[in-house]
Amino acid sequence: MIIVMGSRDQDDVDRVIRKIEEFGYKAHVILGVERTVIGAVGDERGKARLQSLESLPGVERVVPILKPFKLAGRELKREDTQIRVGSVEIGAGRFCVMAGPCSVEGREQILETARIVKEAGAGVLRGGAYKPRTSPYSFQGLEEEGLHLLQEAREATGLPFVTEVMTPEQVELVEEHADILQIGARNMQNFGLLKQVGRARKPVFLKRGMMSTVNELLMSAEYVMSEGNLDVILCERGIRTFETETRNTLDLSAVPMLKKLSHLPVVVDPSHGTGHWDLVAPMAKAAVAAGADGLMIEVHPHPEDAFSDGSQSLKPGRFRTLMEELKPFLEIAGKTL
Amino acid sequence: MIIVMGSRDQDDVDRVIRKIEEFGYKAHVILGVERTVIGAVGDERGKARLQSLESLPGVERVVPILKPFKLAGRELKREDTQIRVGSVEIGAGRFCVMAGPCSVEGREQILETARIVKEAGAGVLRGGAYKPRTSPYSFQGLEEEGLHLLQEAREATGLPFVTEVMTPEQVELVEEHADILQIGARNMQNFGLLKQVGRARKPVFLKRGMMSTVNELLMSAEYVMSEGNLDVILCERGIRTFETETRNTLDLSAVPMLKKLSHLPVVVDPSHGTGHWDLVAPMAKAAVAAGADGLMIEVHPHPEDAFSDGSQSLKPGRFRTLMEELKPFLEIAGKTL
Amino acid sequence: MIIVMGSRDQDDVDRVIRKIEEFGYKAHVILGVERTVIGAVGDERGKARLQSLESLPGVERVVPILKPFKLAGRELKREDTQIRVGSVEIGAGRFCVMAGPCSVEGREQILETARIVKEAGAGVLRGGAYKPRTSPYSFQGLEEEGLHLLQEAREATGLPFVTEVMTPEQVELVEEHADILQIGARNMQNFGLLKQVGRARKPVFLKRGMMSTVNELLMSAEYVMSEGNLDVILCERGIRTFETETRNTLDLSAVPMLKKLSHLPVVVDPSHGTGHWDLVAPMAKAAVAAGADGLMIEVHPHPEDAFSDGSQSLKPGRFRTLMEELKPFLEIAGKTL
Amino acid sequence: MIIVMGSRDQDDVDRVIRKIEEFGYKAHVILGVERTVIGAVGDERGKARLQSLESLPGVERVVPILKPFKLAGRELKREDTQIRVGSVEIGAGRFCVMAGPCSVEGREQILETARIVKEAGAGVLRGGAYKPRTSPYSFQGLEEEGLHLLQEAREATGLPFVTEVMTPEQVELVEEHADILQIGARNMQNFGLLKQVGRARKPVFLKRGMMSTVNELLMSAEYVMSEGNLDVILCERGIRTFETETRNTLDLSAVPMLKKLSHLPVVVDPSHGTGHWDLVAPMAKAAVAAGADGLMIEVHPHPEDAFSDGSQSLKPGRFRTLMEELKPFLEIAGKTL
Repeated sequence: MIIVMGSRDQDDVDRVIRKIEEFGYKAHVILGVERTVIGAVGDERGKARLQSLESLPGVERVVPILKPFKLAGRELKREDTQIRVGSVEIGAGRFCVMAGPCSVEGREQILETARIVKEAGAGVLRGGAYKPRTSPYSFQGLEEEGLHLLQEAREATGLPFVTEVMTPEQVELVEEHADILQIGARNMQNFGLLKQVGRARKPVFLKRGMMSTVNELLMSAEYVMSEGNLDVILCERGIRTFETETRNTLDLSAVPMLKKLSHLPVVVDPSHGTGHWDLVAPMAKAAVAAGADGLMIEVHPHPEDAFSDGSQSLKPGRFRTLMEELKPFLEIAGKTL
Repeated sequence: MIIVMGSRDQDDVDRVIRKIEEFGYKAHVILGVERTVIGAVGDERGKARLQSLESLPGVERVVPILKPFKLAGRELKREDTQIRVGSVEIGAGRFCVMAGPCSVEGREQILETARIVKEAGAGVLRGGAYKPRTSPYSFQGLEEEGLHLLQEAREATGLPFVTEVMTPEQVELVEEHADILQIGARNMQNFGLLKQVGRARKPVFLKRGMMSTVNELLMSAEYVMSEGNLDVILCERGIRTFETETRNTLDLSAVPMLKKLSHLPVVVDPSHGTGHWDLVAPMAKAAVAAGADGLMIEVHPHPEDAFSDGSQSLKPGRFRTLMEELKPFLEIAGKTL
Repeated sequence: MIIVMGSRDQDDVDRVIRKIEEFGYKAHVILGVERTVIGAVGDERGKARLQSLESLPGVERVVPILKPFKLAGRELKREDTQIRVGSVEIGAGRFCVMAGPCSVEGREQILETARIVKEAGAGVLRGGAYKPRTSPYSFQGLEEEGLHLLQEAREATGLPFVTEVMTPEQVELVEEHADILQIGARNMQNFGLLKQVGRARKPVFLKRGMMSTVNELLMSAEYVMSEGNLDVILCERGIRTFETETRNTLDLSAVPMLKKLSHLPVVVDPSHGTGHWDLVAPMAKAAVAAGADGLMIEVHPHPEDAFSDGSQSLKPGRFRTLMEELKPFLEIAGKTL
Repeated sequence: MIIVMGSRDQDDVDRVIRKIEEFGYKAHVILGVERTVIGAVGDERGKARLQSLESLPGVERVVPILKPFKLAGRELKREDTQIRVGSVEIGAGRFCVMAGPCSVEGREQILETARIVKEAGAGVLRGGAYKPRTSPYSFQGLEEEGLHLLQEAREATGLPFVTEVMTPEQVELVEEHADILQIGARNMQNFGLLKQVGRARKPVFLKRGMMSTVNELLMSAEYVMSEGNLDVILCERGIRTFETETRNTLDLSAVPMLKKLSHLPVVVDPSHGTGHWDLVAPMAKAAVAAGADGLMIEVHPHPEDAFSDGSQSLKPGRFRTLMEELKPFLEIAGKTL
């Protein structure tokens, strides 16, 4: 921590130094031409408390120095993490496309979609059984029945599936059925839920909150990992900005940023990231070029009948075309499906 | 719903009309000079599904017309709601100050703060027993012990208390002890939690998410209310913007906007809203002037030792001064403490 | 400047020290437990160049310490600045309401509005002769004719007027006619224009850009002041955020923040800040409570016929009511109209 | 325009209909189950004025239907525009890399950089002679001398150059020397400047404002084009969001969105878009994959000595590597340098 003094009063400076020492750190003073700056040296772990020194007289600002994530960061683990789900591998050179409908709507819909995306080359089936919806009056998902239908689709196609878990008490049931546990964007800082999936034995697919920084995403991964579950897949799915032409603003620069800071695989969701089916293909290609380890894409056999997210879902034919078009990009990137 | 056509092709228009009718609505076509627009007339409740028509050929945009909240909205209940907590009343002319530390840190700290804020005129004690923290390595609250200390503070001072509940399974325990159940900003769209407190028999203090619109806040209130709990207090606590000089951007225009759209009481939290203790007093007064029904303010006997949020907490003396300074503003606003 | 090293390599550290010394500063090293931090001590003025050290190997971040504004800041001038425009005073205890239509639309409209706002207690007439419009096909203002009509309105009522100047070459003409030169939000970083009004002999009304931080607003004031014109009035008029219910998000916390950092008067524009006439009154009162030195309010005799901004303009009766309602707030704030 | 009524009062509805007809449009009423909606049919050009109907009693919202840009839009010109600058072509299959230092700092620096970027395959040299800087005390550019040095670099290498013009009166001089006139992000809505370059005979390179929507960027292109200059190159260079880890958030989804709405070429600037040299290469590749027609990249022979933007500038070796790495991406995209 660096404490920037607004005042040049020696009493103010002395008070800060005493407080730093009380907290167990060594104080290190730099007398600048216009400002005095005090460094606090010592174990970084508890330094967050030093932020409270901002309330002392004469203190202008407290500036943190260290990145606060350990398990998710590259400093302690330099090589890329690869996550295995059955025969599927994600990260460290292996690229994975997760595709399927926004919601599981019925037996026929999910089985048909599973076959389509499998055939086109997807490695994981996606589909919501529990749906977080802005309105309590909207369709909330088929719940446990949805899990059974996803299982049926897995049996029929061999595709493992990822599905969202919304509350800590659902974790046990979902873990029993699903291959990957998804934490949705709205729950990225639902810390009770993060801790619960941190104790599960299935990989966690962690979506960035729509107003969360890259650092906060990594801190949420740290919550999961600090409970023992090291298999976390990060997902960029668009952030909220002033632009209304797209549903969210897909922040692709988060991909190389996350790869620099963390060893975890990074997947991009261009369906939620843009909200328009006709932007999905160009942004999927751009995600590969930016260094992503996978894609999550909404596919629906009849988007105009979809219970949710119809406007951003690809039709089967368009998804097949996209999968073909991705191949040369993956080749340049040196990744294999 | 209004469907704006990008194409003038009659087949495209006919296809949309057929689909609207299939969904059970009447289609109403307006031929404009450059655009054709189709209105869908019928029961508003299921109209969200019409959004999926955006995936049909020739459709440019689907524009929703109606506000989707019912119980939280002013259309069905015109008069202001007043919420009672013991002898304290909030809303419809009664103003309430909720004050106390960010976290319950120990017996002495919470009892001392409770006495201070009671004496200065606060109506409700605040204090976190369960703390949502960005880092898993930060202090996470005293948990159940914190609830017992808050109860002790209530017995000593007579002040009812509000405290955060973070997971559905905590609701039963917290409900047993606390007078008001707080839903934190990060949990505003934790729908499982919203449903759970919707079945509790204590008022709910619902903080606006830092990434949430006023409409989404009201939809989250609707989640609670649709489960049967009509006692919801809305709280504006700052949204996330590009400005970094303040911790958040306190959106005071949300106060009159919420009062226009909803009958529920609206409380403002200038401590989190600004992140700096010296901005708390001016923004507290501004909140009264903007029409708020209450304030939530962080007070700590020794902010420089606080486990969390020290830089935005008021010292006892400053809180007393603020309470005095608020009085003439409340008088003009026609509200009583 | 504080240079945070990501590497612990001594060569990297030495290279940074050499570079700091080359730039003419003294380097001051703090060896932390996990990070090395290097302070650069010396004249703050040229330190912006040290930012480029981020491109050296092993450097993680460069953190600036000092506020970069001098003339606009409180450090060199502690007491509030009061600006005089004819018999009108703004700042340092004197409150000023600037009111009038968005655009000057014709002789009758501006004369009628001037009489109405004068009678209700406004101190300055506002009205656009040159209009910055998103579309080249929208009404662009009456231009020079508008200036003459504003002059006529001044002669008829005695009210000085503020009007926007959009390009450096307009400055001479507008300066000749107007009492205060307005720089619109879109031009807050039009540096050529800022320098030009910095050489004018009329006060400058500087609106915060919708994308600009409080620090950038002060830097733009610094541009004007560094050319010799010290009479700058700052204006908060709403920033752009994800919230779409209001036209902009009025950032009232900018008022106490600006008052803390700067001695210049601060005016709030709740008309542009909210975009809805029914939010203007509550936000105007809140602005007074937050410590503003004035208000800019759009008033139109017939908003439904306005060429621009009709939806946010007050009708005469509502403006009169607001002026009455502001009085007790001004009294508490210790300010006089 | 669609006028959404909040009231069901027939008088309110009649008043709106009368007003619509007064403005010269036909009113078309849809009686919904809970809302009445009124369409205004007629020439779209003047419809912005109908927005003022929001101030009429009973009106809840006025929703615009049409895209307001004509010359920049795809509706009137379906095929991609290709812009020629000497022997260089941009758009419609031809890809162009514009590279060079942020600022022209001296003869040797600009000549050396020009040779480096030419050799590596850039088609256009970039370099600022007039620099928009947040602080009046920062280096403001070499101004006219900078233009002469850029000319010298063109003579030495054959590379045409793009350079920023900041005020209307600079346009004549810059037009005389430069090959492409750049409008910086801060000036995207400097309408006087847009009109001036709209009368120039050189192509305009128009950067998106950091808080401007895609629609506003196209409206600013419309300003230039409506004055007669149809050669506009659009540039995405990052928008301002809450994320602070990157300097801006590069909105790559703007590329396919702009290509859908407009026929103009779209260039991406990953240097300003990210602010970190190590994010430039991945985002440059992603831009190609997203469909961009060109790149603008900052290159400096010695970034650590740069007067500005050193931390986001590529060293010569890294730029050469990037140019090599871009080739396979361009091949897949079917574009030629």
